[in-house]
Amino acid sequence: MSFRLGKVVIVGVGLIGGSFALALKAAGAVGRVVGVGRRIETLERARALGIVDAIGTLDAATLGDADLVLVAVPVAQSRLVLASLAPLLGASTVVTDAGSTKQDVIDAARVAMGGRIARFVPGHPIAGTEHSGPEAAFAGLYRERRVVLTPLPENAPADVACVRGAWEACGAQVEELGAAEHDEVFAAVSHLPHLLAYALVEHVTGRPGGERLMSFAAGGFRDFTRIASSHPEMWRDICIANRGALAAELSRYERTLASVREHLERGDSQALEALFERARNARNRWLERGK
Amino acid sequence: MSFRLGKVVIVGVGLIGGSFALALKAAGAVGRVVGVGRRIETLERARALGIVDAIGTLDAATLGDADLVLVAVPVAQSRLVLASLAPLLGASTVVTDAGSTKQDVIDAARVAMGGRIARFVPGHPIAGTEHSGPEAAFAGLYRERRVVLTPLPENAPADVACVRGAWEACGAQVEELGAAEHDEVFAAVSHLPHLLAYALVEHVTGRPGGERLMSFAAGGFRDFTRIASSHPEMWRDICIANRGALAAELSRYERTLASVREHLERGDSQALEALFERARNARNRWLERGK
Repeated sequence: MSFRLGKVVIVGVGLIGGSFALALKAAGAVGRVVGVGRRIETLERARALGIVDAIGTLDAATLGDADLVLVAVPVAQSRLVLASLAPLLGASTVVTDAGSTKQDVIDAARVAMGGRIARFVPGHPIAGTEHSGPEAAFAGLYRERRVVLTPLPENAPADVACVRGAWEACGAQVEELGAAEHDEVFAAVSHLPHLLAYALVEHVTGRPGGERLMSFAAGGFRDFTRIASSHPEMWRDICIANRGALAAELSRYERTLASVREHLERGDSQALEALFERARNARNRWLERGK
Repeated sequence: MSFRLGKVVIVGVGLIGGSFALALKAAGAVGRVVGVGRRIETLERARALGIVDAIGTLDAATLGDADLVLVAVPVAQSRLVLASLAPLLGASTVVTDAGSTKQDVIDAARVAMGGRIARFVPGHPIAGTEHSGPEAAFAGLYRERRVVLTPLPENAPADVACVRGAWEACGAQVEELGAAEHDEVFAAVSHLPHLLAYALVEHVTGRPGGERLMSFAAGGFRDFTRIASSHPEMWRDICIANRGALAAELSRYERTLASVREHLERGDSQALEALFERARNARNRWLERGK
């Protein structure tokens, strides 16, 4: 049985939304893709790139006959977008999102969508690059990547299955988590590293002679800070939306660093080597499992 | 005028020493390479891989007619190696090293080499991967990378020129810095990021359910922590050798993180976005300059 949607609407045709459209098209899993967004120039570039077939706005003509709407905008804008589209949904239109935080998006969706909240199946594709915009989109972005859905008690199983089917058609592996657990997991494995990378670049460059210092930085620094080239507005929104879990992770990490500094100050080479060994082994096991 | 050495001895034929040998050979800049090291199996693999032409030990036969000796061992072992080889050097043998810290190596060299200290030209190639051992070595490792020399007042200009010429033959760009400045620069742009990456892996995996948490980590985490797969013994030695400068950098970074956490706790989205913008722009300018 092959999975196929008729019409898909993408709100926010950047890296994430654009790659979803391209992946569905590459899989032959969609009839028609309509793009909606803040900037007409972006949408026109997306059409020129073959990502969307047409440009629409948040109106009944665009939404009334859509099978699936993906909201792929910075998380702080989700509420406004969901409020605008809720009254315009067709009888069988399912809405999902791609936000990197889930509890705040769900809270916003409940307010914004009211009695139509059952139509909203929250999601989070665990994929991305440090690039943004439709030019960065590519059909393979989600292949063998994870997508986490955090379904609501109100969701109909068929609507969850629709969103799952779409992501699986993109090549992703779909998992379900509770929204609170999702936000804690990603505070640790994604949001904290982004914060640390931004902070390190600031730490090194934001001092007199910082540019000269950076001239000695090499490949280790480049990879460590790759995520510090990520979209500042998007990451501002993620950090603010998940600030409770993230501040808790950060303060635990600060305690880890304080103990590392104590090892250094005491010249405790055994403790440092043991830490480095444990970390290297844990990371290498993780890489092995991912193969 | 082409640069060419007769006999080169590599003490420690791993990624760094092995790549130096391969690069000199690829450039036709060396007649014969002899490998010396702790483990005979490693040396035999290096010979089988064509990295060294012969296996030697720290004796007069190996060292007496060498033009250049590269000491490429974990920095804590430099002293013992330099003490062993100092009395055996030929009349025109120059010694250099590849240690990631310089003040401690120089201090150790002064004790170990005594009156022969003038023959030691300290160096640090700014290159590496997270892999180690002769299998990881390749001729292109130093191409367009920097090598920092921190010459001693006692060094003869011709000996500094010999070391410079060898690295330039490997394709590197050679710079000179004072040893103290070197150690401060690399505490910031290299040693601190390694510490942060090891600490993050420990922070995430060293808790109940850490393995499950890691299963949600994606490409950002992988790149951020790549350097946490680096050699634990080597990084233990680097961190201990440079612990003064590194502990100072770490405590300044801890202050940066504390202020980031305050932004989070206050929900100060403007301050976060401004930080992220500055960091992204600084990183992107650095990438541009490197092109």
